[in-house]
Amino acid sequence: LQAREPMDNTSRSRQDASAHVLGTIARKRAGELLPARDIKRLIEDFVAGRVPDYQMSAWLATVACIGMEIEETEALTRAYVAGGMSVDLGGVGKRVIDKHSTGGVGDKVSLVVTPIVAACGVAVAKMSGRGLGHAGGTIDKLESIRGLRLDLAAAEVRALVNELGMVITGQSAELAPGDKATYALRDVTGTVESVPLIAASIISKKVAVGAHGLLLDVKTGAGALIQDHAMAVHLAQTMVDLATRFGLDCRAVLSDMSQPLGFAVGNALEVKEALAALRGDSIPGFTELCRVLSRLMLQLALPDLSDAEADQQVSVAVSSGAAHEKFLQWARAQGADAAQLANPDLLPTAPRREFIRADRTGWVESIDPRAIGNAALRVGAGRLVQGAPIDHSAGIVLQRRVGDAVAAGDCLAEIHYDEGDITSAKNLTASAFTLGISQVCVPPVVHQVFGAASRLQR
Amino acid sequence: LQAREPMDNTSRSRQDASAHVLGTIARKRAGELLPARDIKRLIEDFVAGRVPDYQMSAWLATVACIGMEIEETEALTRAYVAGGMSVDLGGVGKRVIDKHSTGGVGDKVSLVVTPIVAACGVAVAKMSGRGLGHAGGTIDKLESIRGLRLDLAAAEVRALVNELGMVITGQSAELAPGDKATYALRDVTGTVESVPLIAASIISKKVAVGAHGLLLDVKTGAGALIQDHAMAVHLAQTMVDLATRFGLDCRAVLSDMSQPLGFAVGNALEVKEALAALRGDSIPGFTELCRVLSRLMLQLALPDLSDAEADQQVSVAVSSGAAHEKFLQWARAQGADAAQLANPDLLPTAPRREFIRADRTGWVESIDPRAIGNAALRVGAGRLVQGAPIDHSAGIVLQRRVGDAVAAGDCLAEIHYDEGDITSAKNLTASAFTLGISQVCVPPVVHQVFGAASRLQR
Repeated sequence: LQAREPMDNTSRSRQDASAHVLGTIARKRAGELLPARDIKRLIEDFVAGRVPDYQMSAWLATVACIGMEIEETEALTRAYVAGGMSVDLGGVGKRVIDKHSTGGVGDKVSLVVTPIVAACGVAVAKMSGRGLGHAGGTIDKLESIRGLRLDLAAAEVRALVNELGMVITGQSAELAPGDKATYALRDVTGTVESVPLIAASIISKKVAVGAHGLLLDVKTGAGALIQDHAMAVHLAQTMVDLATRFGLDCRAVLSDMSQPLGFAVGNALEVKEALAALRGDSIPGFTELCRVLSRLMLQLALPDLSDAEADQQVSVAVSSGAAHEKFLQWARAQGADAAQLANPDLLPTAPRREFIRADRTGWVESIDPRAIGNAALRVGAGRLVQGAPIDHSAGIVLQRRVGDAVAAGDCLAEIHYDEGDITSAKNLTASAFTLGISQVCVPPVVHQVFGAASRLQR
Repeated sequence: LQAREPMDNTSRSRQDASAHVLGTIARKRAGELLPARDIKRLIEDFVAGRVPDYQMSAWLATVACIGMEIEETEALTRAYVAGGMSVDLGGVGKRVIDKHSTGGVGDKVSLVVTPIVAACGVAVAKMSGRGLGHAGGTIDKLESIRGLRLDLAAAEVRALVNELGMVITGQSAELAPGDKATYALRDVTGTVESVPLIAASIISKKVAVGAHGLLLDVKTGAGALIQDHAMAVHLAQTMVDLATRFGLDCRAVLSDMSQPLGFAVGNALEVKEALAALRGDSIPGFTELCRVLSRLMLQLALPDLSDAEADQQVSVAVSSGAAHEKFLQWARAQGADAAQLANPDLLPTAPRREFIRADRTGWVESIDPRAIGNAALRVGAGRLVQGAPIDHSAGIVLQRRVGDAVAAGDCLAEIHYDEGDITSAKNLTASAFTLGISQVCVPPVVHQVFGAASRLQR
């Protein structure tokens, strides 16, 4: 910071860039609206390496404190996308629906709703990420399946959408270079929890993918990225507004993450649970959420479809086996081992189990999803640092959900593991359960739906 | 940010430190009060290199946005001082007064009030800094005097206070290591303008020096570090509160920086003006401010002294020549060239002058101090980057002040220079003057005084 070189053109452009950042920090802190051109320049300069990390993090922290107006968030989203690749789904000749979840514990929804919607004849292109911290990622879960390729090029994505009406793949870092550059910095500077920064990050990647409709699943509750309910509502509204400004038909569901979703937490365990759901098993909470999301995705593609008609199509897709068959077709098309898919018992299975039992009789009052997510982490189901290897077989299988009655000695949860810190995992899992002396209400699965359906009628 | 090494003890302690910073950022943003131990640990970790710049800058930006309660600012001040050196003036056997200005254009007050107060028999120890940007620094000004040593060790400081009752020296970076570490980062991350961060930075160094009384000169107006009046008031109150918590008797003056102070702006030019003031010349605004500050410094040492008695002592110190003689004694004691001091014409003098003239008849409505400070910078009187050399002879001498009448063609200001960008300096100086068609009120020199005098009566 102290030593400065004599100025040549490069250092002069760096000085100009630095002066510009300092100006935007001061103006944002003073409550001024940042013009789109200033936000564009800031991200351009950062991506080009003209702004050092310590200045960008001060800008991000200032935005996280002060917030942004929707016009500023729109400008940031546009700046994130600038210079990136596009998957260009606009040209595939049919309406394509994308889906995104803000992430939670046991959230294997994408593995179920994508084939259901595709089986109903609506094309779905799902770009997914990896998990970090207590929440898992769809790509990590799918890597439990031997042979499945999850790094498809844009041309392959378009071909699968055309031929099969379904694709799930990892998202290319090149979709939104500005988001890629800032995301890693946000993660290490405590600036993740910010509505405009989250909204711009998510929507920029969706804009780059270029689907026609987008369904957002915004989690709320103790296991969500954003735990504060009002902030989650604000995030859902902001993202719907933002996506609409970029021409995407968008709706958002505010769904419950006050306990883990479904019974299984952990990669192969969740794939097995998703396959069971596709075969028609009813999983409390999880099945209901999958059906609501599937219905809304169908309606994004077919705005004239009534709720009842859409629900009926979803039911038939599952009961007829069409959704399950669509999943198998899709997985084979992306290279999956057919034998493993035909028999989910061949998916990675942990050699050891520990059982967590109730120490008294009563009712399950709450199950802390963060404690469960962290317990799964401790036995290797996720990663604490980017790029670390994970054990796809490891995780937690809940045996009880909130509202269930238990007798002393009943099994509350199983820990599936091989290596890792089983003592911590046991303590975390046991501590996640609160047993009460009376029955409690089960929280609703879907709290709210955002995005005017009427806007879609055209 | 992406690649991470396998964890050894060092990286583990870095990870712990990082996790701690992220926690304090999130809690500060959520409006929580940070406990003193968390602030202490954060600064310790940063000084020890366990927290990267990009995380510290996010923390600083968050504090700049959200602010801090006085208890947090006190903890930050204590953390800044921890592990630093002390000048230890507590043991010199008499009450010692320190003085600090938040800085402004033409602010050579310390050169005048220090010898006045010392001539009145009250010991003054003044630790000064260098200028950066549009405002000059006392050390740069004094370096105009050949031979003067301004890097005294703590023992020399104590000896001069004892023998002469006066010392002015540069401040050792070792006084407040936490402040030193964060100061450079604040400068390049747009986090300078924050009341708690400024207050902790200033008061930490004063606590380390360890004088008994402290007079703060907080500038307000266009040429001040903090231009917003309400924020300057808040800063003055915060610093008085903070200094008092560390056992310093403290008062603060909110003084005017809506125009440059005195006529001279530039290092040797200001030394000459200070010497003239010590010889009894009356300089509008400047003389008044020096007398008020001198009186308040005397009263910090001698709480029973009435305003009238103190004013009388100050007048006699100047009119008798005692203050001027004290300056010469002091300068010789710190190695200054006696001939140069006896004849100020031997101080550095610029070879060239340009005159800025009024383009019409009227009254001076305003003189933008930033434009004048920047004009002086352009001809080499200050530095834009730390460590750059300066031309001690260069600067601006105003010929008119706010409220003065001017006739078309009158000289408004002289630019003294040798090299540098004289065209910019001329344009800036000319643009600094606003001439109006009617006389305007001259702003008061002292806006407000903070710190209860009653608290000092003991």
